[in-house]
Amino acid sequence: MTLEEVIAGVGAGERRAIGRAISMVERLGPEGRELAATLHPRTGRAWRVGVTGAPGVGKSTLISALIRHLRAAGRRVAVVSVDPTSPFTRGAVLGDRIRLTDHFLDPGVFIRSMASRGHLGGLAEATADAVLVLDAAGFDVVLVETVGSGQNEVEVQTLTETVVLALMPGSGDGVQAIKAGLMEIPDVIGVTKADRPGADLLVSELANALSLVPGGPWEPPIVRVRALEDGGVVELWDEVQRHRAFLESDGRLETRRRAGLARQIRALAADRLGRRVEAAADPAFLDGLIDEILDRRIDPSGAVDRVLDRAGLS
Amino acid sequence: MTLEEVIAGVGAGERRAIGRAISMVERLGPEGRELAATLHPRTGRAWRVGVTGAPGVGKSTLISALIRHLRAAGRRVAVVSVDPTSPFTRGAVLGDRIRLTDHFLDPGVFIRSMASRGHLGGLAEATADAVLVLDAAGFDVVLVETVGSGQNEVEVQTLTETVVLALMPGSGDGVQAIKAGLMEIPDVIGVTKADRPGADLLVSELANALSLVPGGPWEPPIVRVRALEDGGVVELWDEVQRHRAFLESDGRLETRRRAGLARQIRALAADRLGRRVEAAADPAFLDGLIDEILDRRIDPSGAVDRVLDRAGLS
Repeated sequence: MTLEEVIAGVGAGERRAIGRAISMVERLGPEGRELAATLHPRTGRAWRVGVTGAPGVGKSTLISALIRHLRAAGRRVAVVSVDPTSPFTRGAVLGDRIRLTDHFLDPGVFIRSMASRGHLGGLAEATADAVLVLDAAGFDVVLVETVGSGQNEVEVQTLTETVVLALMPGSGDGVQAIKAGLMEIPDVIGVTKADRPGADLLVSELANALSLVPGGPWEPPIVRVRALEDGGVVELWDEVQRHRAFLESDGRLETRRRAGLARQIRALAADRLGRRVEAAADPAFLDGLIDEILDRRIDPSGAVDRVLDRAGLS
Repeated sequence: MTLEEVIAGVGAGERRAIGRAISMVERLGPEGRELAATLHPRTGRAWRVGVTGAPGVGKSTLISALIRHLRAAGRRVAVVSVDPTSPFTRGAVLGDRIRLTDHFLDPGVFIRSMASRGHLGGLAEATADAVLVLDAAGFDVVLVETVGSGQNEVEVQTLTETVVLALMPGSGDGVQAIKAGLMEIPDVIGVTKADRPGADLLVSELANALSLVPGGPWEPPIVRVRALEDGGVVELWDEVQRHRAFLESDGRLETRRRAGLARQIRALAADRLGRRVEAAADPAFLDGLIDEILDRRIDPSGAVDRVLDRAGLS
C-alpha cells in the first residue's frame, strides 16, 4: 500500500488502511509524520473519551460494555489501549477473549493496542497520532484506555475531551490522591464493581473528596457501574454526553482543546527530546560517565552536560 | 556568605551553611552547579533511604519515628521532603507541628522541604543536589520523602540505596500496581497503621503479589508499623540495615549505584531540556501555534518542531 492509498483508505474508513496508518505513525518516521500532517485537516469530528484507572479496576470490562451500548445506538467506535495490563493489549484470559471477540468481528468497531516501546520512548507521540488517524477515519467515538491519571507517559487529558476515571470499592489511593490535589479531577467517575461491599463508602468518600478541592462550573458526576451485567453503563454514557453538551456551550470546548493542545505540545516535545537523549546515552558511553562519577571526577550534573553535548542538545 | 564559606560550612556540618547550600542548588544557576561539583568528591558516606507512598498513608509519622530511633542511637539524620502533602513541607496541623518541633530543635537533625517549582521544572535536579549537599555535610542517614514510586518527577530510586514503601490497610491500588508490574518493587515495605482492621489482609495480599512478580536475590520484607507509638519502627530500621548489609556484600552496592546513576542522568537530562522547552514555549508563542493547529494549518507534531526550533533544540 502506498502512502496515498493509505490516506484514501483511512478517509473511506477501511479497516486495513487504518491498521496500516497506525503502524506507520507508530514507527515515528518521516512517512508517519507526513501521514499525520495530511490527515490532520480531516479531524475534529470524533468525541474522544479517556478511560483511566488503576490496573484491575475493570476498565476493559467497562469499555466492552460501552462498545455494546454505542453499537446498539449505531455509533462507530474505536479503542486505543495504552494500558499494558489491559486484555485489549495483552493476551486476554479466556472470559475476556470471548467477550472481546464480538467486537473484533464487528466492522463498526476498531480496537488497537499501542505496543510499549520500552526504553525507545515515543509512546506519547505514537498514541496521539493513532487517535488522530481514528478521528480522520470517521469514528464517532474514540476511547483511549490508560493506566492512572495525569502522571503517565501518555497524558490522556491532552488527547480527549472527556475523561472517565474508573475506581473500585477498596481503592482508597484514588480518593486520597484527589483529596491531596495530586490527581487531575476527572470529568466523570465510574465506581466499578458497584455490587461489592464498600461501594457506598467509596461513593461518599469521593463526594467528600470532591467537595474539598476547588471546583469549576462542572461537577464530576459519580456513576455506579456493574459493567459485566451492563448495569449503569447507559447512565455513565449519558453523563459523558452531558459533559459534551456542557463543553459545547459557551465556547468551553475550544478552551478545553486549547489547554489540551498546550499540554500535548509540551509532552510531545519532551518525548521527542527523550528519544534523542536515549540515542546519545548508549550503554558504553553511559558506563564511562558512571565510572567518572564513581571516581568522583565529575558529578551527575556534569555527566548530564556531556550527554546533552553528545546529543547535540547543549 | 561567599561560596567558599558555604563549602567550608557544609564540610563542618554547620546548619546555616547547609541551608544556604541547598538554597543555592535550588536556584539551579552556575553557583549551585559549582557548589555541587565541589562537594561531590566528599559524598558517598551517607546511607540514603527513600520513604515513599501515597498521600495519607503516614510517611511523615513514620519518618518522625525513624528520626527518634536514629537519634537515640546517636546517628545524625537529614530529611529531604518532596511530598507536597507532607507536614514537613506544608503548614503542619497542630499535632504534627508538636511532634516535628522536637526534631527542628535538635542539632543532629536537618529537615528540608523542596518547594514545588510548578511549571518551572527542575525539582529532580534540585532534589538530587540537596541530597548531595546533605551527604557531603556528614549526615549518617539521609531520608528522602516522596509521593508514589517510580513514576514521579523525582525518581527516589535514583537517589537512594534503600527504598521503603509505606502502604496502609485499605489501599488496594498499591497491591494492584505491584501485581501488574507497574510499580518498582521496593526494598522494604512498611504496613502503616497496622492496628487498623485490614492490616492482616494487606500483608497477605502483599506477600501474594510479591510472589507473582519475578524476584531477585533480595525478598522485600513486610513490616507492620504503628509509628505513632513507635511500634515496629526498630524492626523496620533493622530491615533497612539488613538491606544495607545485603548490598554491601558481593559488589551489589556498586551495581545498585550504577543503575541509579544511569537513570538519574537520563532523568536530569529530561528535566533540564524540559526547562528549555518551557522557556521557549511562552504563552503568546504557544497561543499562536494552537491557533494554527485549530485552523488545521499545522498538526501538533508540526507545532512541536516549531517549539524545538525556538528552543535551539532541533
